Amino acid sequence: MTDSKPVGVALLGYGTVGEAVYRLLAENRHHFVQRIGGDIEVRGVAVNDASKPRDGVPAELLTDDAVGLVERDDVDIVVEVIGGIDYPREIVLKALQAGKSVVTANKALVAAHSAELAAAADEAGVDLYYEAAVAAAIPVLGPLRRSLAGDQVKSVMGIVNGTTNFILDAMESTGASYDEMLAEAMRLGYAEADPTADVEGHDAASKAAILASLAFHTRVSYDDVYCEGISHITAEDIEAAKTAGYVIKLLAICERIVDAEGVEKVSARVHPTLVPKDHPLASVKKSFNAIFVDAEAAGQLMFYGNGAGGNPTASAVLGDLVGAARNKVHGGRAPGESTYANLPLADFGEVPTRYHLDMEVNDRVGVLADVAQQFAQRGISLLTVRQEGSDNGARLVVVTHAAREADLADTAESLKSLDAVKSVNNVIRLEG
Amino acid sequence: MTDSKPVGVALLGYGTVGEAVYRLLAENRHHFVQRIGGDIEVRGVAVNDASKPRDGVPAELLTDDAVGLVERDDVDIVVEVIGGIDYPREIVLKALQAGKSVVTANKALVAAHSAELAAAADEAGVDLYYEAAVAAAIPVLGPLRRSLAGDQVKSVMGIVNGTTNFILDAMESTGASYDEMLAEAMRLGYAEADPTADVEGHDAASKAAILASLAFHTRVSYDDVYCEGISHITAEDIEAAKTAGYVIKLLAICERIVDAEGVEKVSARVHPTLVPKDHPLASVKKSFNAIFVDAEAAGQLMFYGNGAGGNPTASAVLGDLVGAARNKVHGGRAPGESTYANLPLADFGEVPTRYHLDMEVNDRVGVLADVAQQFAQRGISLLTVRQEGSDNGARLVVVTHAAREADLADTAESLKSLDAVKSVNNVIRLEG
Repeated sequence: MTDSKPVGVALLGYGTVGEAVYRLLAENRHHFVQRIGGDIEVRGVAVNDASKPRDGVPAELLTDDAVGLVERDDVDIVVEVIGGIDYPREIVLKALQAGKSVVTANKALVAAHSAELAAAADEAGVDLYYEAAVAAAIPVLGPLRRSLAGDQVKSVMGIVNGTTNFILDAMESTGASYDEMLAEAMRLGYAEADPTADVEGHDAASKAAILASLAFHTRVSYDDVYCEGISHITAEDIEAAKTAGYVIKLLAICERIVDAEGVEKVSARVHPTLVPKDHPLASVKKSFNAIFVDAEAAGQLMFYGNGAGGNPTASAVLGDLVGAARNKVHGGRAPGESTYANLPLADFGEVPTRYHLDMEVNDRVGVLADVAQQFAQRGISLLTVRQEGSDNGARLVVVTHAAREADLADTAESLKSLDAVKSVNNVIRLEG
Repeated sequence: MTDSKPVGVALLGYGTVGEAVYRLLAENRHHFVQRIGGDIEVRGVAVNDASKPRDGVPAELLTDDAVGLVERDDVDIVVEVIGGIDYPREIVLKALQAGKSVVTANKALVAAHSAELAAAADEAGVDLYYEAAVAAAIPVLGPLRRSLAGDQVKSVMGIVNGTTNFILDAMESTGASYDEMLAEAMRLGYAEADPTADVEGHDAASKAAILASLAFHTRVSYDDVYCEGISHITAEDIEAAKTAGYVIKLLAICERIVDAEGVEKVSARVHPTLVPKDHPLASVKKSFNAIFVDAEAAGQLMFYGNGAGGNPTASAVLGDLVGAARNKVHGGRAPGESTYANLPLADFGEVPTRYHLDMEVNDRVGVLADVAQQFAQRGISLLTVRQEGSDNGARLVVVTHAAREADLADTAESLKSLDAVKSVNNVIRLEG
């Protein structure tokens, strides 16, 4: 122990997560003191309106001067749970530059500005932790940074957004439409009033960027992630998937791939995905999250739990806080982001994917040949083809082997204009 | 970086795990150098017979003088993958006393002597890591030490022995007997020639001791763990469980309990357990491992993956090695075992458990009343009672609510001598 002064903490933000962090820190402080090897004390709580009382927080701790708070001499660690990007970026950078370690739960901030934040943390020799930014209480960033530091990660594939998993799971179990289940998710508090960030995959894309960066030691930002949401998924899509033995999940998929020239690249993408019913990710229900990691020596690992909520997020924030405080007391620094591998990022078009296509076709001789020809001329081989009669024509369901995404997208496009094809009802990628 | 000398490593043992550690370290050294922030070099490999060549290991690295190797000045970290207890204990203690950090995969050693080893590591201010000792590549000790350091763990419940899970799963899917599936496990290399440590639960008990110690910040040793294996489980037990909607798993269960006087205690036990079919642990097949953690703020978490094998174990060992090497280069120390909570250990008899009892009873008036009376007089309430006719009498299956283990065991014993009861075929505890 370098000295006996308590480790000083500044809490920025007092929403659901901030409140849980403050409360649990107060409740468990005696445990934390033991785990840290020294005392820990909240120096102030920065909020928009410091005159509004907050249950359980002494009035003298409340301040609307976040910058002033993080720069106080008796603050060692800054916990940022405000949300947003520009404002927390400014304060977090000031904190790091002032030599304070930072714990944040802010996925959007980290996914957009990790290079700048990591550089500032390195410059000051302090810790920058953000376990809560991905899948809340599920320890996955820690394991990627530390437990798997002796291994090579091949891919990370996860359900990292509880709102969309709730909606898709509810559609699956009730047969209801997307709009109905979105409304249900809002009613139950699983979706926000403006659900765009969740349902269009932006939230999952931030998490994909963070996971890919840590897994592959390569900088991947939010803008590098291909992103497709679930708002176009219909009850018919879910039904068709079910019939074929699949479940539709919104997956964040981060992979090392080898391109046509043999160059190793990193890919990160978010899109609705058909997952076989017996795949462990298929059984992740309601708003739960789960992350699959495939590593060269470890093989397949799965991490499962609550991916959101005040207490689960606070659990991850406090785990980071205890770690950062321990380092303040004992010296040392947590392993930071490493970008030594610096692999090139793959264009989405060159990533190998698999398609499940569901089409209405004319019921006449030669249709199958015409359709098959579209795949064959782009070198795409087919895993399964299922044709059955429908009211006016025939239904054709095709599952491909892996091929370049651009070739598959091109094929799907050209099928739409083929005489033999009346409509392409459903094109969903497939994994597992 | 404190200096530019490579971090020196002594590898003790060159069996399946040692070979994998050596090979993967050589293959991935360039990655590790980046992650550590400095170079890493194997100084020697201690084996029984140094004259026997080992594929890929330069002859000059081989030595049969393990003590001499660990005490060399250019050795900073000792990796122990010999197995056994007394001999590795002696060398690991010498290494710690000489100021070397230690990484071990040896669950029996840690479960038996963690107090002594932790004290020696603290004394010398060095790291003692053993992630591989529980569930190999599945990161669970790291998450307990670090990610959950801001939370309070309520229970840890896991499938931590691949051999027994393979046997039970094979019995379940084939209907075959224990002996047949044990033979099959041996044939496929999932069970050792002497399978005692696995099938009698000793291996799982070591892991339970380690998990309970870290989860509850209380010293739990192998001898403190109640331990019952699977060798008495019959095909009929599996079949009966299946009919009732359960799967039989060998679980390591670590809990905080509150005793009759309101005192908080720690309990760790290993026994065959009925798990409902829809519980996530029920779907853990073959030799896979999975660990459920229930924490106050985080809620339920699950960690799943390969719990054994050369490469998966080496993955965990190398993750620890990179962490220990990083601390040698950058300073700082990993959070060690903390035993500050020092909760009393519960007697197995006072732990709340639930029983599933399967009996043959006489088919006459009053039998159910006689049986029910046995439970009632000990204050045990029943969840379900199912009675059906059989060839010569009736079969009675009872599932209890939670009650003191001693009372349940006593009831089961007294039922055996009840006139109305012809035989008690199956008494298995139940969770979830």
